[in-house]
Amino acid sequence: MNTSLYIVKIGGNIIDDEAKLSLFLKDFAAIEGKKILVHGGGKLATKLAAQLKIPQQVIDGRRITDIETLKIVTMVYAGFINKNIVAKLQASSCNTIGLTGADGNTILAHKRSTNTPPTGGEPGIDYGFVGDIDAIDVDLIHTLLEKNIALVFAPITHNQQGQLLNTNADTIAQELAKGLSEDYDVTLVYSFEKAGVLLNINDDSTVIPTLNPEKYSQLKSRQKIVEGMIPKLDNAFTALSSGVKKVIVGKAENLKELIAGTSGTSIIND
Amino acid sequence: MNTSLYIVKIGGNIIDDEAKLSLFLKDFAAIEGKKILVHGGGKLATKLAAQLKIPQQVIDGRRITDIETLKIVTMVYAGFINKNIVAKLQASSCNTIGLTGADGNTILAHKRSTNTPPTGGEPGIDYGFVGDIDAIDVDLIHTLLEKNIALVFAPITHNQQGQLLNTNADTIAQELAKGLSEDYDVTLVYSFEKAGVLLNINDDSTVIPTLNPEKYSQLKSRQKIVEGMIPKLDNAFTALSSGVKKVIVGKAENLKELIAGTSGTSIIND
Repeated sequence: MNTSLYIVKIGGNIIDDEAKLSLFLKDFAAIEGKKILVHGGGKLATKLAAQLKIPQQVIDGRRITDIETLKIVTMVYAGFINKNIVAKLQASSCNTIGLTGADGNTILAHKRSTNTPPTGGEPGIDYGFVGDIDAIDVDLIHTLLEKNIALVFAPITHNQQGQLLNTNADTIAQELAKGLSEDYDVTLVYSFEKAGVLLNINDDSTVIPTLNPEKYSQLKSRQKIVEGMIPKLDNAFTALSSGVKKVIVGKAENLKELIAGTSGTSIIND
Repeated sequence: MNTSLYIVKIGGNIIDDEAKLSLFLKDFAAIEGKKILVHGGGKLATKLAAQLKIPQQVIDGRRITDIETLKIVTMVYAGFINKNIVAKLQASSCNTIGLTGADGNTILAHKRSTNTPPTGGEPGIDYGFVGDIDAIDVDLIHTLLEKNIALVFAPITHNQQGQLLNTNADTIAQELAKGLSEDYDVTLVYSFEKAGVLLNINDDSTVIPTLNPEKYSQLKSRQKIVEGMIPKLDNAFTALSSGVKKVIVGKAENLKELIAGTSGTSIIND
């Protein structure tokens, strides 16, 4: 059996709430063993763009990253958010290093093509400086984890030709999980606004505790899975097929319980 | 004899000039062996503060870092500047990782006291979230250098209690040089606007090629060293006394020549 590794993805609902973020980081720091945090963006980038009068174009919930917006997300994600998380984790005696995919060449990506969007964007749309991941280089990540240093990834990658690229944090978490599953028993935790995969989207008490491919098919055929969850869950099952041991979805506020298996939905492959 | 390590500090005159920065980074990438780059801030933080209408207070050339200014410098220094440098070095096949002092707990600092400024500020002035360095933790730095990864430090540290601190880049370079001099033969390169220590401040052709303590005393007594250079040179000699092998001052544009000894001023302790 390999060493356990937890990869936890948090989104804007935690990042934008200083009190919630602090509590979450204390729980994250308390996870025993190897761990990686992947954070998204939150509202600060949008707010900064408005203050700087840089128009933001969003198509189907995806931000178009022009050169000025890339500058903003690099500042906010890789600078402000990432380094504040690192400093707070250090305060909880969790030795941490903050990274983008450019650092140590850990995540290699290419600028999304206008014609053939590989990760679900609409064809014909120029998403700008958005990266689709080509490869994870696990060498440095492995070295850092073996030194018991926690890693915090900002959702920025690069193309190895000097270009930084705005990259989806869910995808980064998933690719890291897949890339590291040879060396570790990886549990991938996706935190979001809901308590897990719900039978009734408006009722957090209807969490499905465990979901395997068979049950997932049944629920989908009975239209019990809300549309927005389907790509997330498809990704989760893809991750499991690529060697990831377990995917857990639920609220970041319940991180301890998510890991203990007493909250959220555990997605498994058996 | 230990392995050689070059620690190069660059300032705003290079950071603010995209073409110069690119050329400099090509030269930096070409340095054989272990290397660390420490960058300052440049004008972008000041420009961003003006755009966001955050008043900047500067006393004796030192920026007062209030909480909004700290946010800006964290975004600009640790985010935009640091990650763009990392991406550009990766494009030159120089595997690089960008760090603040919070990352890996590499540089521990404390918020500068209003009453007893240890690094030359005026007493009675509250510099805000400015850090004075207490310790360098060389463990992670050593691990990364031994993997032949170049390090790029942004001028941000932390106090291990969750607070990021704006910190002078010259001081970071010097403390890193001192802290690493047990393990490496350290050459510390301070780049600035002039071609070296000059006999005539307005004439780049009057560079003093080599300066030892004796010659420095003579020139000072003859008032041949301009006032602004004295703290820099005092620091250089302190670094040498702490085990650093050589300090070189000169233009970043001449990095290759500075390292070859054919440009700039070499400050030595014999």
